[in-house]
Amino acid sequence: MANIGIVGLGIMGLPMAKNLLAAGHTVTGHDRSQAAVDKLVGFGGTAAGSIADTVAGADIFITMVPDSPQVQDIVYSEGGLLESASAGLIYVDMSSIRPDVSMDVAKSCREKGIRPLDAPVSGGEPGAVAGTLSIMVGGEQADFDEVLPVLSVMGRTIVRVGPSGSGQTVKAANQLMVAVNIEALAEALLLLEAYGVDMAAAVTVLGGGLAGSAVLEQKAQKMLNREFAPGFRIDLHHKDMGIVTAAAREAGVVIPLGAVAAQLVAALRSQGDGGLDHSALLRGVERLSGRYGEK
Amino acid sequence: MANIGIVGLGIMGLPMAKNLLAAGHTVTGHDRSQAAVDKLVGFGGTAAGSIADTVAGADIFITMVPDSPQVQDIVYSEGGLLESASAGLIYVDMSSIRPDVSMDVAKSCREKGIRPLDAPVSGGEPGAVAGTLSIMVGGEQADFDEVLPVLSVMGRTIVRVGPSGSGQTVKAANQLMVAVNIEALAEALLLLEAYGVDMAAAVTVLGGGLAGSAVLEQKAQKMLNREFAPGFRIDLHHKDMGIVTAAAREAGVVIPLGAVAAQLVAALRSQGDGGLDHSALLRGVERLSGRYGEK
Repeated sequence: MANIGIVGLGIMGLPMAKNLLAAGHTVTGHDRSQAAVDKLVGFGGTAAGSIADTVAGADIFITMVPDSPQVQDIVYSEGGLLESASAGLIYVDMSSIRPDVSMDVAKSCREKGIRPLDAPVSGGEPGAVAGTLSIMVGGEQADFDEVLPVLSVMGRTIVRVGPSGSGQTVKAANQLMVAVNIEALAEALLLLEAYGVDMAAAVTVLGGGLAGSAVLEQKAQKMLNREFAPGFRIDLHHKDMGIVTAAAREAGVVIPLGAVAAQLVAALRSQGDGGLDHSALLRGVERLSGRYGEK
Repeated sequence: MANIGIVGLGIMGLPMAKNLLAAGHTVTGHDRSQAAVDKLVGFGGTAAGSIADTVAGADIFITMVPDSPQVQDIVYSEGGLLESASAGLIYVDMSSIRPDVSMDVAKSCREKGIRPLDAPVSGGEPGAVAGTLSIMVGGEQADFDEVLPVLSVMGRTIVRVGPSGSGQTVKAANQLMVAVNIEALAEALLLLEAYGVDMAAAVTVLGGGLAGSAVLEQKAQKMLNREFAPGFRIDLHHKDMGIVTAAAREAGVVIPLGAVAAQLVAALRSQGDGGLDHSALLRGVERLSGRYGEK
């Protein structure tokens, strides 16, 4: 069993920490929200008052925070990871952040003898609660192998995809594909509705061929019902599309559909739908088409 | 067993006719290519020298031609379907054409007592040969029910999706989603390659989550290998994206990603790749990104 420190006890981090505790690990946690820390203590964890206190005594240090600046703050700030950690610590950043930031962080960690892994997840809150996340890991194979038993408590599909930053790149690619596939489905569904097609029959036949997808299976019926409770919020997908476009710019890869999808997600957020599920991209197509509120 | 007339004995129509003959139906066929008609005769069919001759004596008349103008020519020309058919004939247009044209054709047919069904297919040449096509049918339920045993010889998933034109609309939606999903995959793969990610591992983890799709399953490995033998040709998808954009314009539905995907398919065709599989959209992303020919 490992001594694990974790910073970030939000809707993802807290259930992940709970699963680690349930598996018998020792978990010390820190969060800006005292209520979140209190919940961790309720599950059997230990409260830490600072990043340094979270790192102290840990074999594995995990972060699960919203975005790149929060990770940079945890790593670089006074009393942060680089100042606090002993050589040999494994640092697993499970946040979804920019691949280039992730690579910079990894480099800084290695200079201090800290062993970095970027390990963003997909599967959302349900996956975090059930311990069935997909985890895309970048970093050294030996460090991955060492931490795999701990990651296995939180996830089901856990794959090392390359050197540091690779996990973040794969997560970015994942979010590009998901946003584009949802928008394609939204455009297709509104077109079909406009022509008075039998939507249930259409979804069946579309799902049986090359247009079939996990997005179609999981989102089509809710979109037809205009049920947009999250799930995965537009606000978060907007953040991720920022990562996607930045990563593509950094690499000089041109992503026409990714870029348009990023704008459509941004539009939905600007229109006040940031708190809805990303399948609410259908509302954006409705507004563009003068059909908003018809269903 | 039915007397079936068929016009259009190309790479789709000929194997479909062959399957109808093998199931015991009588098939009379016509095509601009005498070689195609000769092949039909070789399979046990009967040659017809004109549309009128193909319609004469048929219970069911099928067309399987490239595009809307060919269907309009067969229906409206001198000696065409409207002039030749007796009341009660079932006309099944299995071509992929514009939904609005399909609705016009259906209206004209009904005025003559002809019973129209639009029944475009997906599954390509392999599906036509194996008799496993997906068939999306628009038209009257009673006519659909009557012709279903014949359609079942050619397809596996056969669904009535609404009134006349609905089959074409669903096919258009299908082609929109397929083009967009392929382009999204192409953008994602090039991004991942640019970052030096382990591509096999990445495809595995992407396929296990919300980014999973039939396109990913069927096309990713070939795209990574730069194998672009068709399959489904860019030229045909270009034609279909014309139908998609026209159908969306007609209905007043705005399709931002569909429209961009149509342009990217058009670009690939202009760049000389019209004869390649639609997964060659990856080459377009490579060219845009200055990475063409690297792999």
